[in-house]
Amino acid sequence: MSERKRGELIVLSGPSGAGKSTVIAELLSARPDIHFSVSFTTRPPRAGEEDGVSYNFVSREEFQRMIRDGELLEYAEYVGNYYGTSLKVIRDQLDQGVDVLLDIEVQGAAHVKEKCPEAVLIFLIPPSVEELSRRLRGRHTDGEDAIALRLDKAREECRECPKYDYLVVNDTVVSAARQIQSILEAERCRVHKRLRFAESFINKSDT
Amino acid sequence: MSERKRGELIVLSGPSGAGKSTVIAELLSARPDIHFSVSFTTRPPRAGEEDGVSYNFVSREEFQRMIRDGELLEYAEYVGNYYGTSLKVIRDQLDQGVDVLLDIEVQGAAHVKEKCPEAVLIFLIPPSVEELSRRLRGRHTDGEDAIALRLDKAREECRECPKYDYLVVNDTVVSAARQIQSILEAERCRVHKRLRFAESFINKSDT
Repeated sequence: MSERKRGELIVLSGPSGAGKSTVIAELLSARPDIHFSVSFTTRPPRAGEEDGVSYNFVSREEFQRMIRDGELLEYAEYVGNYYGTSLKVIRDQLDQGVDVLLDIEVQGAAHVKEKCPEAVLIFLIPPSVEELSRRLRGRHTDGEDAIALRLDKAREECRECPKYDYLVVNDTVVSAARQIQSILEAERCRVHKRLRFAESFINKSDT
Repeated sequence: MSERKRGELIVLSGPSGAGKSTVIAELLSARPDIHFSVSFTTRPPRAGEEDGVSYNFVSREEFQRMIRDGELLEYAEYVGNYYGTSLKVIRDQLDQGVDVLLDIEVQGAAHVKEKCPEAVLIFLIPPSVEELSRRLRGRHTDGEDAIALRLDKAREECRECPKYDYLVVNDTVVSAARQIQSILEAERCRVHKRLRFAESFINKSDT
């Protein structure tokens, strides 16, 4: 099939504790050809987070400059910190036929869908509130008040999931990553993305 | 995940020579839980075709009675023969959560989509006109005139593919069957099919 293909833009969101980071790691190990877009943020790095890998950590001043200079596809403020996505990197990858994965918050995802209606929005959800609560407590980074706040925030974010195209339940990391791969493969088969191929078939005379 | 699920209704169409039968065989061997709906037809069996397996072969009179009695989800006349799908069997399977696969012509597929908008329509296309021509000649069942007619018919059917949800190119039987499996898995993750799960998540209080 000699059809020239454009990459798929996949946006993954989900509440804190949904397991996004581990699912993304599993997905990228199965599909190393996917370009994972590293977001820019003004929030301080957590233990173990590396600049340029987990996030590009920048100052508030630098982030505001990027907003002014139109360098961001989307950005959002979340719990007092900025998060944003570089426009140019993504455009270049998609044009080269590379699939691009974005890990962004609910607000940012809505902006991406506005600017790129062909983006595929996936919401990752924990299997239950009980499991989410267990995972947040297991982190040992937050007190009970902070956990209650995160659970409320999670419920609030889940209310936005009807704006997404797909809902993936993170029962196990392997099955969630496999479902995202299936979504990616299915999206590539969408009729409107393959009409040029169908047309070439119709118009070509038999040899 | 205790969510009660309904089966997916998958409609597979494609021109004669696209390789539908072999792709379906491969798919059902990988996913024996899928119920393959055996169509009713008035066309005479080809060599090797078994009643109740390839088709339910019935007389023209019997088929017309089924139409009158409203027993068919869809039916179509194609090259002088009737083809149709039993409504009751499919409904029962879907209600039990079983995925159902229909192999039907373009006309019938449009009728199914009208009656069941949630049906997933997949169009199977050969990798090229040259390959289709080669496959039709390889069958040794048709003369050159019949082959020319089938190629024209194939092009005509492909014009209908924008009415489908997905276009799967049958480069190899294994990859085509895998793509259909991915489509099925992705469709099960569609947000509107999982809203009840998301709602239960939102409304359940932490324990």
